[in-house]
Formats: sequence, structure tokens, C-alpha cells
Amino acid sequence: MDSFSERLVAAVASTGPLCAGIDPSASLLTDWGLTDDAAGLRAFGSRCVEAFAGTVPVVKPQVAFFERHGAAGFGALEQLIAEARSAGLLVIADAKRGDIDSTMDAYADAWLGPDGPFQADALTATPYLGLGTLRPLFDAARANGRGVFVVVRSSNPEGRPLQEAATAGGPSVEDGLLAELGRLNGSEAGALGPFGAVVGATLAPSAFPLSQLGGPILAPGVGTQGGGPADVAALCTGCAPRSVLPSTSRSVLGAGPSTEALRSAAARARDDFAAALC
Amino acid sequence: MDSFSERLVAAVASTGPLCAGIDPSASLLTDWGLTDDAAGLRAFGSRCVEAFAGTVPVVKPQVAFFERHGAAGFGALEQLIAEARSAGLLVIADAKRGDIDSTMDAYADAWLGPDGPFQADALTATPYLGLGTLRPLFDAARANGRGVFVVVRSSNPEGRPLQEAATAGGPSVEDGLLAELGRLNGSEAGALGPFGAVVGATLAPSAFPLSQLGGPILAPGVGTQGGGPADVAALCTGCAPRSVLPSTSRSVLGAGPSTEALRSAAARARDDFAAALC
Repeated sequence: MDSFSERLVAAVASTGPLCAGIDPSASLLTDWGLTDDAAGLRAFGSRCVEAFAGTVPVVKPQVAFFERHGAAGFGALEQLIAEARSAGLLVIADAKRGDIDSTMDAYADAWLGPDGPFQADALTATPYLGLGTLRPLFDAARANGRGVFVVVRSSNPEGRPLQEAATAGGPSVEDGLLAELGRLNGSEAGALGPFGAVVGATLAPSAFPLSQLGGPILAPGVGTQGGGPADVAALCTGCAPRSVLPSTSRSVLGAGPSTEALRSAAARARDDFAAALC
Repeated sequence: MDSFSERLVAAVASTGPLCAGIDPSASLLTDWGLTDDAAGLRAFGSRCVEAFAGTVPVVKPQVAFFERHGAAGFGALEQLIAEARSAGLLVIADAKRGDIDSTMDAYADAWLGPDGPFQADALTATPYLGLGTLRPLFDAARANGRGVFVVVRSSNPEGRPLQEAATAGGPSVEDGLLAELGRLNGSEAGALGPFGAVVGATLAPSAFPLSQLGGPILAPGVGTQGGGPADVAALCTGCAPRSVLPSTSRSVLGAGPSTEALRSAAARARDDFAAALC
């Protein structure tokens, strides 16, 4: 079984560096002429898969927009993940889950388990309860060839005080988490470990060099949020080739609903980043 | 429309202080002779509602155990929430959601919106991206008579370094969050605001006095995790009467599957806390 990072690096090598967000908000569903219900979500997802397969390596459905429609919305998410993977896309489920003990086991079963309902390639996770509590996700990722992206540094201003707070050991919260992830990845056999970080693309680098993370980096905040190829390249100086995934949603999805227009917008964003990162 | 805190205080006054967790893990489903699927979840939920209605004021379904069964699991959760509220129970959905911008709007719609699929009385939320990002939850709570419990202090050891880290402004992360919640509640008209905190029952009090939170407190970690009535009483010295909810899951659910045994276990735990808190 290939590891998640092996699959990611191979996909970026063959298609280019971009993660296309799939964010079916009420306003985008309306803009695309779709109904704000589970049928609309299904049509939106299928359209995205059609547009993005072969154009970008990775899609990132934002789970909240499916959760908004309850059980029926999660049915649409199950379908989207299956369609995307059938079309050769890697899927990062953006759910930002985090809890402790047997509750965390249940989230790991749901998203990264061999028989889970949501067969994502990777899951985003939130570390407020401590990185150690995410161990069930790490174990499932390792066992099943999946990945985890821990939200570490967010570019929104409200997150800075907490993420920059100083731990008793010395480093900031965010740098402490990056170092812990680096240690976890370092104990893996592969060149690149399965434990990634979400790091906002519009931030200046922090003290921990991302080149020492030893895992993939997901960099949201590009496109309409202001981060450009040069920002991402500066942030990830020295990182392993093809381990950095700029992530954009609105700037690409805003080009819909035409499949051709979505594909062109995604290809343009991908090529901009490819020039800066490769 | 009564506020969430008004309804909570009235329910605790009439029934007593306890939040009963509903945690249908794979092992508990098996122990109860139920199948590990959505049908098992539905039966487990109905049994809990039957046992707890009239015995405790609040139930807290742990969303991860429903998410583990995908769309079908969320269907069981929708049913459980509706059954519990019909039976007069308040429902805190323990989902620990947290995100930014329109994504947070979507979570607010899902859990606290007037037409959302999950009609919870309150939702737990995680603050890693900054308390300000949870504003859509706060706004929905205020508008729709619901509540929010922000996870602030967890008793698991992995959470301590992050939660005790020092922000640039001075206070620890956790005390800064409690103070922010206090300010938000202070701007509310009612005696007790709708913005609560989750504070582990086994921890010694931090520098911020919980009596100044101005909102309800959810205290997990009681029962099998070690926290007792005296711990919760010490933690919440000076808090508004009936604003403190000790939360237990395993110590009560372990008495199942008999409805009578569940009811007795819940009543015993409730009475222990009532003696210490009231």
C-alpha cells in the first residue's frame, strides 16, 4: 500500500500543485442555479469532480456545507468522496475534528478507517485538546495509507493570540505543534510522513522552519484571500518537492457553474503556483 | 422566547443538576445487545430518552459516535434530538465544531439555526481559531434562544500545555477565553448569558473565577473519570445557582441496557451532585 504522502507527491508531480476546495455554500448553490438542498449538493459535487479530475491533484470538500443539510447532506458528501476518488482525485475532508479518547477513535473510524462511511484520503484536525489526543487519527492514517492535516497556523487575525501564545516549555503553541508533528513524521520510514500541517499562506514564516516538518503542507488563504504564489514559496522554502499544496476555493468556484470555466480557473491557479513552487 | 440559560436554569431547578452523555460507542452497542449500525444507534438513543426524561434535565449526544456511521448515523442523531426534545429534555450536541467565516455560518445553520436539521438547544465549540471566529454561533444562539459551550479547559493532560500557554496580553489561553466569554455574556440583558464554557471537573480552578463567567458551565470528567461532587462544587464556587452542569457518560451508560437501571444510575449521580451544588 502506498502511503498518503507517496500518493500526494505522485499526484502533484503528474498534475501540478493545487488543492481545489469544494464549498457548496447557500450563495454558491444559488449562483450555480442549484437548489439549496441535498440534490443541489450532489449536483454541485458532481460538477466539481467533472471539472477538476485531471486538472488538479486534490479536492477538499468543506464538511460544514454538507452538515448544514443534515443526514441528507452527509449522503451527498459520501457520494462526492466516492466520485472524486473514482475519478482519480485525492480527497482531503476539511472537517477540523478534534476530541479525546474513544470519541477520537470514532472520528478516526468515520474518516480514516478501512470500512468508514467517508473514505477520505486525509482529514483536517484541530489540536485544542493537545496533539496527543489526535493519536487515533495518526494511527489510522499510518495503518490505512491515509493522512492527517493538523490546523496549526491560521491567517485570520482572531487566531493569532492563541496560536502565538508561549508554552511553558518555551516555543509558541504553533511552533510546538509543528515540532511535535516533525517528530512524529521523523519516526516514519518514508521520505515524507503522513502528518501534515495547515498553515495560512498569508502569514510570514514562524520560528519553526517548515522544511523540518517532514510532512505535507496545506496552505489555504490563496486566491481571493490574498495569498499568492510568492507568499507560498517563501513560506515553504526548503520543503520537500511537491509536498506543498496551496488551497483555493472561492477564486475557482466563482468561475462556475460552467465545467469549462471551472477547469480553466483551476488550471490557471495551478500553473501560477507550479511556476513558483517547482 | 425564553433564552437557553433561562430554560436550563428552570430545568435544573425542576429535575436536578446532571447532564447525561449519550455515547453509543461500538463497545456499548455490543454490551447493550444492539447492532453496530444506524438501527443500533436509533434503539440506543430511544432507550436513553426513555430512561432520562424526567430524571435529568439535559442529555448530551456525542456526535462522533453518530458520524462514525455516516449519513445513516446522522439520521439516527436527527431522530434522537427530536425524541429528546419532545420528551422535555434539553439537548447539548457535543460536536466541538470550529472554523472561520462562511464555514462557521454553515455550522451555525446546521446546529443552531431556526430551520437546521439538528435542532439542538446548545452546541459545543472549539476555539483554536480564536473565539471571535465563533461569532456566527453566538449570533445564532442569541437570535434563536440557543446556547454555545466553548471548550476551554480540558482535564486530559495533553491539553494542558496549550491551554495554559501565556498570551502576549498576559493571561493564559484558557483564562483569556473565559474572560472573553464573560464579556460576551455581560453584554446580554438576561441574568445569565447564553455563552457557556466546558471546564474539566478534575482540574483545580484557574486564575479566572468562574463566578464571573456569567454563563453556564458544563463540567465533564465526573463519574468514571474521577471528578466528584466536591470537585465540581470547588470549581464553581460562587457561580449562579443551577448554572453548573456536571456531565457524565460511562458511569451511567454502563448500567444499561435496562431502562430502570439507567434511570436509577442517572438519579443517583444527579442526587449526589444536587447535595453538593444546591
